[in-house]
Parts: sequence; structure tokens; C-alpha cells
Amino acid sequence: MKQKNTKIKTAISAHNGFTAKIVSSHGFDYIWASSLEISCSRAVPDASIVSFQHIKDIVENIVESSSVPVIVDCDTGYGNAVNVHYYFKDLKKIGVKGVCIEDNIFPKQNSFYKGLRPIEKTEEFVKKLKIAKEIFNSNDEFVIARTEALIQGYGQSEALFRAKEYYLAGADYIMPHSKQKTPEELFEFSENWDHTVPLVSVPSTYPNVHINELQEKGVGIVIYANHTIRAIKHALDQILPNILKDGGTHNIEDKISPLKEILELSGEETVKEIERKIK
Amino acid sequence: MKQKNTKIKTAISAHNGFTAKIVSSHGFDYIWASSLEISCSRAVPDASIVSFQHIKDIVENIVESSSVPVIVDCDTGYGNAVNVHYYFKDLKKIGVKGVCIEDNIFPKQNSFYKGLRPIEKTEEFVKKLKIAKEIFNSNDEFVIARTEALIQGYGQSEALFRAKEYYLAGADYIMPHSKQKTPEELFEFSENWDHTVPLVSVPSTYPNVHINELQEKGVGIVIYANHTIRAIKHALDQILPNILKDGGTHNIEDKISPLKEILELSGEETVKEIERKIK
Amino acid sequence: MKQKNTKIKTAISAHNGFTAKIVSSHGFDYIWASSLEISCSRAVPDASIVSFQHIKDIVENIVESSSVPVIVDCDTGYGNAVNVHYYFKDLKKIGVKGVCIEDNIFPKQNSFYKGLRPIEKTEEFVKKLKIAKEIFNSNDEFVIARTEALIQGYGQSEALFRAKEYYLAGADYIMPHSKQKTPEELFEFSENWDHTVPLVSVPSTYPNVHINELQEKGVGIVIYANHTIRAIKHALDQILPNILKDGGTHNIEDKISPLKEILELSGEETVKEIERKIK
Amino acid sequence: MKQKNTKIKTAISAHNGFTAKIVSSHGFDYIWASSLEISCSRAVPDASIVSFQHIKDIVENIVESSSVPVIVDCDTGYGNAVNVHYYFKDLKKIGVKGVCIEDNIFPKQNSFYKGLRPIEKTEEFVKKLKIAKEIFNSNDEFVIARTEALIQGYGQSEALFRAKEYYLAGADYIMPHSKQKTPEELFEFSENWDHTVPLVSVPSTYPNVHINELQEKGVGIVIYANHTIRAIKHALDQILPNILKDGGTHNIEDKISPLKEILELSGEETVKEIERKIK
Repeated sequence: MKQKNTKIKTAISAHNGFTAKIVSSHGFDYIWASSLEISCSRAVPDASIVSFQHIKDIVENIVESSSVPVIVDCDTGYGNAVNVHYYFKDLKKIGVKGVCIEDNIFPKQNSFYKGLRPIEKTEEFVKKLKIAKEIFNSNDEFVIARTEALIQGYGQSEALFRAKEYYLAGADYIMPHSKQKTPEELFEFSENWDHTVPLVSVPSTYPNVHINELQEKGVGIVIYANHTIRAIKHALDQILPNILKDGGTHNIEDKISPLKEILELSGEETVKEIERKIK
Repeated sequence: MKQKNTKIKTAISAHNGFTAKIVSSHGFDYIWASSLEISCSRAVPDASIVSFQHIKDIVENIVESSSVPVIVDCDTGYGNAVNVHYYFKDLKKIGVKGVCIEDNIFPKQNSFYKGLRPIEKTEEFVKKLKIAKEIFNSNDEFVIARTEALIQGYGQSEALFRAKEYYLAGADYIMPHSKQKTPEELFEFSENWDHTVPLVSVPSTYPNVHINELQEKGVGIVIYANHTIRAIKHALDQILPNILKDGGTHNIEDKISPLKEILELSGEETVKEIERKIK
Repeated sequence: MKQKNTKIKTAISAHNGFTAKIVSSHGFDYIWASSLEISCSRAVPDASIVSFQHIKDIVENIVESSSVPVIVDCDTGYGNAVNVHYYFKDLKKIGVKGVCIEDNIFPKQNSFYKGLRPIEKTEEFVKKLKIAKEIFNSNDEFVIARTEALIQGYGQSEALFRAKEYYLAGADYIMPHSKQKTPEELFEFSENWDHTVPLVSVPSTYPNVHINELQEKGVGIVIYANHTIRAIKHALDQILPNILKDGGTHNIEDKISPLKEILELSGEETVKEIERKIK
Repeated sequence: MKQKNTKIKTAISAHNGFTAKIVSSHGFDYIWASSLEISCSRAVPDASIVSFQHIKDIVENIVESSSVPVIVDCDTGYGNAVNVHYYFKDLKKIGVKGVCIEDNIFPKQNSFYKGLRPIEKTEEFVKKLKIAKEIFNSNDEFVIARTEALIQGYGQSEALFRAKEYYLAGADYIMPHSKQKTPEELFEFSENWDHTVPLVSVPSTYPNVHINELQEKGVGIVIYANHTIRAIKHALDQILPNILKDGGTHNIEDKISPLKEILELSGEETVKEIERKIK
């Protein structure tokens, strides 16, 4: 699937059916089933600890609950090319449309965790990409190849070399992941990239970039990769302590959704429809 | 376990390891593993759809992530007394301290869903309570018996009759659940209750009550039973649409937690400690 | 789906991917994902203890591993019509072709467990059947309605009345379950049945019946419903004690499959193919 | 935990609650939760495809159903030392007594799969062992270190060097795994081993060895590592085809356990006890 000169798409993070249902209603083009958010939701490090069975279960719930296509943040592919073969067939079967794999070595660590870590040999990662693309090969399916070359200190030319190899192996998008505080590293990459396939940007550390700038630089998808769980943590930390302070919830009622909204979202009406149908 | 004249305790809802970790850090005495929140988190109705295996998995994750004891909202006990026997032993084994069962008939529907529904015969429910108490029988373990008599229109005297029977069957707390907009229904119950065991209040529909009033009425635990997921929905609905409107996240950065906080919460330091230990 | 005057089909039990792979290679028309075998495989009673999430996981594995279509023994439908709505959609999505529901009351007990138990009201069970048939409505999908009327002592006329109602609600097959030592009870039912849809026979307690007799009586599918796990138990009880008695496995080597066969069955060749492809 | 000059112990394979219940009743000292059998039971290769969540679920079921302590075949530890940290704590919590880890590289392949594969660097594997021993540190808990040095062609001196390092890292047993058709390779190892800790033998390919010979060579545990699933496959292949051939089960009834035995094993009596208790 090639996407050139098309309008840049947006993706927003989710980590369960509930967040998928809400965030997919706000106009984003894709859900990003974030590995960091899924790990956090289970309170374990983003370090290949959540096992594939849990990931599949959560992603299936996200796909069923989302009104837009789902891209799965697949880390390293959960092992080698044989793992990719088995697990990506499962992801396809449950309705996933996009998969993203990165050239970290299994078990990976979150890119923003302290320290520098070696990355996978190009030829090994290319094997995974080929298997991934063999599976996600329909018109509406795609594979994002994410390189950690910039983040782990391998430099622009290594990142570009890998991007080319990943494109040749079948990647539909290249994500030159960056942890800089500005988008300059991404923009430099873009200048030297031949744009055979579009780029993907994850501006977690460079929030000041505007989506129009990204579009100009050949970015096909911008992923807001962890903002859902960050919004949640902030809200809980702000709101909940007031309950104990105030001796009740009277002062927070306007800062939380009405119970009715939650009941509706839970699917009360579906239950009532079935009841009417079978009466 | 009897608790009389002791200071009223507070419980706050959670539905996964992440929310358990956050909310348990804010001074509440217990986590309430809310059936409504767990159902919502999987985007299915609160109607006995989430199966026990999922509940156990989620509750285990909550217990591991919480810094305070966990009470599980067990609905009907997931079937009859035989189900209670098998499932409550599982819950005890994973470290649950309190269980709450209600006299709805399996499959239950959320008490606030439209319509009135018949409730379980007293003698049937008492069987479940006896099995539950046989299992949760340590000093730091307890069973809450919740009656739907008031909500389903059976009246105060039926509620009081059942409360007495439930106490005799071993219940450590009685929860006379109410969906009134004020606490009057609960207070009337309290006036006629002999207070052999303390009451439990879930003021979802009567938010203006103060915890001190509840304490005076013999309430041993007040449960803020769905405020976590309501705070989450409100936050996501308020914050996320701004990303698309603003063409980026620059305007919401102060309304979401810094990425660093999420990385910390995810357990980055545990990974680094292990790395140092094995170097 | 109506099947009349067609050759009788055979189904054989399985309870995991392994047994499905083996037994589906021996010429049977269907796999029967047996509730008794699945319960046994997890060492819990056949009494609605294994929760739906486990059942779905196991059935998905059976479907993926079987070379023939899979019929799921769905007990009561795991609750009421709302549960059927949610769970049967899941079963359809993972590729199940046939579902069987019975008019036991949730939580059910195995039909062969001691004692007589009341059965579901006809109108309640009909609701579940209608929902089931709405979901399993393709040409290659079917719903089996199993009545416990004979087993639980309600007699032939009640069984026939229910069968008619179940047919009208959409059932593609009727299973008049029997625990007699001969097929006479089934044959009597057959004589009075109008054969609008074929019957299903489960000759667990009447092993002497020949498949040709069943075909003559209007049986469309005969299900050998627990013979896989019974063959397994017998083999393990016979073979394994010899290891300790003989001080080694030398005397049992011809009574167990060669290791090579297990390695092959495990999928060694798939791994090797992937390795060759990516070299 | 050191075991010297004690009587050799025996372990027999299992892959679910059912097989654990049966085989643990036949006098073996331990259950071996076999990675090959568990992979086979899910019909996927023995190549790190079954994810930890499934393994934990299956092992928990085995522990609950077994009347003897359970040793888990943990392959590589499912990743690196961080994975060992998280996963082995889970295994300990569910009641596992022994863990076995091997110096294959994640994702591993079954030792008997075709081809030679490189093994883990000693210093990396030692890290995993130290973490494992930190967790399984009670008197009744133990860690088996399995080296693939012989199988993967690294020779006796490398195997002995590693065994010493593994012992120093805390291993309670050393398993010098072999795929020879006789026990000579193991015996040669034994001759040169200082027997600081006992050996473990897995005579899958050398069935003619007698347990007394093994004891003399310093073997503390002999594991019959895949004989349960091999007995099962053989029985199913022999017995089930006769059903179709004979037009019924009449000729196999004496080669399968009576239905009554299965009902008993399933826990019918537990259900009846609960029913009597609550009447």
C-alpha cells in the first residue's frame, strides 16, 4: 500500500475497549494500540513483559470497540521471524489493519528508557518485515517499519540505509523514531529520504510541531502515541484527592462524566434491544 | 470480622492495574474492583458478560498493583453456590480481601439500568453467602451482602428482613443499595437496622451526602464506585479533541501528565535495578 | 440449514488443539468441542465452571487445528439470551460452524450427574434459540437444540412438544438427549417426530447401536461425545504405571507414539519452512 | 537445596489439569510441565510460540490438579533476566516448586528439531540463573540449569565448564541434555562432574537406560518428559478409527475408560457435597 501526496492521517493511542470507543469517536483516522499504554495498563514496564496472549486479547477488544481502523504497536514482533509468522496471522484474523515493528532486539525496552541499547542487525529485521508484509498484504492493510537508529545513536546515514532496506523488504511506511525535543532530526531525515514511501511521526518529545509541517515533510501518519494514558493520569491525580478532602464527591461532579453517560457507553441500550426483540 | 464504632473507611473504584496503582496512592482505604468499570473497560454491558476468567485476570492485576486491600464487586457470585465455591477460592488465592455479592439473579444487570427486575429468593442467596464466608474467613477478610430490595421496589421491610438473614448467614457488612437522589432511603434503613454489622454506602446517585453523616448512620465503608472511569471519560472528551483542532498537542501539554511520569509509573526503575544487579 | 435423507454425519469429541488435530484426521465429519471434555481437561466439574473466555480460547484453538468443521457444545448458552447474543457472535467470528444449546438452567450440571434437575421454561429457551439462529444463519452454519426432557423425567410428550417449538424457533437439528442403556427412548421419540428437521444422537450410554440404525431413525448427526478423553484416560492408566514398575520406558516404547511423530505433529516443518524462506 | 546420596526421584510429563490429575496418581515424585507437550496441546511448534500468559494459566491448572509438586520446563526463561524476574515471581506465586531453564537463545527451538543452533553466552545465562534462584529460594524450591552444550555440538568440556558456572550461580541441579541413542554421553559427563549438585536425566532418546544406572551416575531426578502425550497420540490413533470402521463404539468400549470414571474424575462428588452442605 503506497500513500503519496495524500492528506496526512492522524492516530491516537488506546489501551482497552473503553478508551478505544471514546477516542475513536473524536475524529482521528486510526487507533494506535500503544505498547507503552498496554504495558502501563497492566502496571508492568514497557519491556516485552506483557505476553502475546494478553496483547491479542486487548487488541481484539480494541478492534471490536473502535469505529476506525487499528494500528498495533508490535515492538520487535515479539521474538524472531517465526514469532512474527504466528502472531501476525493472529492479529490479521482479529481485524487489525496496520502493524508497526521496530528494529529493537527482543526483549525491547521503551525507547525513552534511560541508556543506549544496540539494535537488531538489518538483515535479521528485514526477515521479520518480509514475513509481516506477506501477511498484511491486502489493499487496506499496511506495515510500518520503525527504526531506532536515531534514538540509539547510530546516526542519520545508518537510519537512511535501514529505511531503504526496510522499504525494499516491503514496508509501507518508515518511522524514523526520535527522542529530540524538536522535529529537526526527523526533518533532516526527510530531506535525505527519497520518499518512495511516506514517513510516520511520533511527536511525543516534540509537541510543538504542527501537523501541517509534518505533512510538508512527507509524513503520512502522525501518531499521538501516549496522550490518552497521560490525560487519564493527570485527571485522576487532579480529581480524586478532592473526594477525601471534601468528604464526598459533591465538588467533583462537574469534572467527571455523569453516571448516565457511562451506562449508555456500557451498552445498556443493546441489552434493552435484545430484551425487546425476544419479548 | 465485625467493625463497630470504628472510623468509616473509604473505597475508590479501579478497573485495571494502572488505575489501581494511581488511585490507591491517594489515601483511600480500599480499592473497589468495580463490575461496572470492568465491564466498561471491555466495552460490554454490565450484565454478566465479562466472564470470570477475565475478571480473575483483571483483579489479580489490580491486587498486584494496589498499595491497599482490594474489595471485589462480585455481582451475583457468577452463578449459584457451586460457582461461588470455585470462583471465590480463586479470588482468595490471588489476594483479594473483601468480596461483595448481591441478591440479583444471574445474569444480573446494572442496578441503574432501566426497568425493575425480580431478585433472588432469600434462601438461595443465603446459600451463596454461607459458601462465601466459609472461604473469606480470616481476620482480615470480609463479605459484603448487598441487597437490591430497595432498588427493585421490594420496600424497606423486605430489605431489613433480608439484611437480618444475610447477617445470620455470615455477612460482615450489609449494603442496602439505593438509586435515590438523596440518602434518605439509606438513612431510613439505618434507623430500623439493629447494627449487628455495619452498613456500606455507595452514593453514586446521592453525591451530596457527607462522609460524616454516613459515619453517624452506621456506615462502615463508603464506596465511590464508578468515579474513576467517570473522571477518565470526562478528561478524554475534554482534552483529546483539541489535538485535531490545534493541529498538535502543544495546547494540551499542561492538561496531561508528562511522559516522564508515565515512564516512571510503568516501572522503568525496576528494569534498571535488575540490570544493575546482574551486571 | 435443512438436511433430510442425506447420509448421516459423524462427530468426534476434542478438548484442545492437539486432540482436534489428531481426531480430525481419522475421517469424522465434525469435531465436537465437548463441554464435559473441556471441563475435565481443566479438572473442574461439568457444571458451568469453565468460564466463557476459556471456552472461546480453547474452541479457537480447536478450530485452527481441525481439518473438519467444529460444533460447539454450548451447554445453556452460558446464561440468558443476552449472553447468547454476545458469546455466539464471538464463536461465529472464530470460525465455529455448529452450535448446540440445551434446555438446562444455568448453571447446568452434566446430564449424567446424579439426581434429577428442573429444565428451562420452553419460552425462555426459545428466546435463546432465536438469538442463536439469527447469528448462525449462513448456509454452512447450524443450530442444534438439545432437550433434556427425557433425561430429567418430563417424558416423551413434553420432549416432542419442545422439539416442535424449538424447530419453529429456528433449530436445524433436534437432540432428544437420553441416558438409557439402549436407544429405545430415542427410537420412540423418532417414531412420533415429524422429521421437519433431522435428529442428533449421542450414544454415550447406548454404545451398541449401529450407525445404520440411527440413520434409519432420522438421525442426521451421531456424536461420539466423550470417547477421546475416555481413550486418553484408559491409555494413561494402562501405560504409565509400567515406567516405575520397569525402572524405565523400555517396555512401553511400542505402546506410545515415537517422539518423531510428536515433533512432526508439533509443526517442526513449519518452522523449518519459515527458516528456509527467510534465509 | 542440595540433594546428595538421596534416592533418585521421578518426574512424569503433563500438559493440562486433566493429565496432571491422572499421572500424578501413579506414584511419580513430580509432575513435569513439559514445554513440548504444552506447545503440542495448543498445536503450535515447540519454539517459544505459546506465550507466557498461556503457560501461566496452564501451569496454574496443573498445580491445582496435581497431588505432587510441579517442575516447570521454562525453556529460556522466556526472554532475558528481566523476563525471568517478572515471570518466575508469577510461577512461584501459583505454587510451582521447581523451575528448569536452559541455555538456548530466545526464541528457542525444541532440542530434537533438525539442525544445530548456537547457545546463549555463559555470562548471560548465569544472570538468568541468579535471578531465578533469588526467587525460588525456599527449602522446598529448586532451580534446574539445563545445558544444550552437548546437543548443539559444543562438547563435553564446554558442558562441564558451563555446569560449574551454573552451579556457582545457584543451580540446584544440572541437566546435561543429550540426544544420543544411549546414555554414554551423560555417563561420560557424570564421570568428570564433581557432583557438587546432582544431575537430571531426560532419557527421551535413550529409553533403555535403567533408573538404577542413573542413580549410580549421580542423577537426582529422571524426567519422562513427553511420554504422556506420546501415550495419548498412540491411543487415539489406535482406537478412534475403529468407531467409523465398526459403525459404532461397541468394539472399543473395553479400550476406553467407562464414562462413570470420567464423571468421577471431573469432580461430580464435589458438586454433590456443596449441594448437600447448602441444603
